Amino acid sequence: MFPNKKVQKMIGSKVQVEMKGDLHLLEGTLSSADDYMNLHLVDTVEIANGERLRSLGSVVLRGNNIILVIPMEE
Amino acid sequence: MFPNKKVQKMIGSKVQVEMKGDLHLLEGTLSSADDYMNLHLVDTVEIANGERLRSLGSVVLRGNNIILVIPMEE
Amino acid sequence: MFPNKKVQKMIGSKVQVEMKGDLHLLEGTLSSADDYMNLHLVDTVEIANGERLRSLGSVVLRGNNIILVIPMEE
Amino acid sequence: MFPNKKVQKMIGSKVQVEMKGDLHLLEGTLSSADDYMNLHLVDTVEIANGERLRSLGSVVLRGNNIILVIPMEE
Amino acid sequence: MFPNKKVQKMIGSKVQVEMKGDLHLLEGTLSSADDYMNLHLVDTVEIANGERLRSLGSVVLRGNNIILVIPMEE
Amino acid sequence: MFPNKKVQKMIGSKVQVEMKGDLHLLEGTLSSADDYMNLHLVDTVEIANGERLRSLGSVVLRGNNIILVIPMEE
Repeated sequence: MFPNKKVQKMIGSKVQVEMKGDLHLLEGTLSSADDYMNLHLVDTVEIANGERLRSLGSVVLRGNNIILVIPMEE
Repeated sequence: MFPNKKVQKMIGSKVQVEMKGDLHLLEGTLSSADDYMNLHLVDTVEIANGERLRSLGSVVLRGNNIILVIPMEE
Repeated sequence: MFPNKKVQKMIGSKVQVEMKGDLHLLEGTLSSADDYMNLHLVDTVEIANGERLRSLGSVVLRGNNIILVIPMEE
Repeated sequence: MFPNKKVQKMIGSKVQVEMKGDLHLLEGTLSSADDYMNLHLVDTVEIANGERLRSLGSVVLRGNNIILVIPMEE
Repeated sequence: MFPNKKVQKMIGSKVQVEMKGDLHLLEGTLSSADDYMNLHLVDTVEIANGERLRSLGSVVLRGNNIILVIPMEE
Repeated sequence: MFPNKKVQKMIGSKVQVEMKGDLHLLEGTLSSADDYMNLHLVDTVEIANGERLRSLGSVVLRGNNIILVIPMEE
């Protein structure tokens, strides 16, 4: 399965996303994803050292600034 | 709804945008957005630690340098 | 008006541009812009803390490394 | 063989991947790869100074944030 | 004149190029340029604080990592 | 000769490549290159301050993260 399809299959379940920049790990439910790996997450929280840092709610992530996506429910 | 459509739906309302580079969080009213997530914000302010840092007014943001977009009125 | 069109409308007037990398804010007259937001500025100066740092004259800016563009004459 | 085809040929075998950002070297089995060099790795571990730092399991890597890919079984 | 055409017109003359990454300013004669602003420079030197740091000779620069191009002979 | 063609002509000979990220200069024999400047190098070594730092062997480099390519045999 191509990497993009792998991400599509995570829709509706929880994912962790590492972004470029100063943000820590994001954790949320993947609501949608397109071919550029732009993602819409809901119930998103920022995690540092295993602890909830802050709640971000609904966020749209720009695909080219995503380092990696980890499925949390496999 | 695809991530880009999600952003389109925020037009006319307030958003927070995290950019690459040294800028802090930007907050403004989304005036327009295209498929590359290039954004035009008006009444934009730069926010640090929950405080207004400086007023930027009307700004055009290059989509590939956007980390994430958060709707403030859902 | 789409973000790119917004930039097109700034041609002939003064703009501020924040770039990625170590440069400070650039200020100059926008001479041309294309759909990728590549920009040609003339009479460009680099600004730090509100002071002219150095004069760059005519410069071509690569669009994907632009963080944001601010019109100075609205 | 073009670089992308070289990566395609690594599918099913172990690779090391250097990403942008703060991550150390990733090591895992390449499950799939597309033309943008988006990669799906399984049994992924993060390596620092030759030691396993943490286990990441199944991860999707965004191609444009990959610095380099090293085949481990040639 | 579009920014890319502006760069095309610099072919055969001296330019300064600011790149992303740790390099200082590059100075050389522009040998060729394409629509992505990939550049081929010859007689290239790296400049720091107005002094020649090292000689690089013939170099190919990846367009997306160019911050700006300055013509030196206008 | 366009920059990409210049790189194509280096196939089979030694090149130095400066990448984004924490890597030092890479030196190796260019095995293949595509239009995005994705490169496949063999017999690759990482160089710091003119000394071999470590041997990487066969590596695929993602084109958009290449800063510059220097031919070593002209």
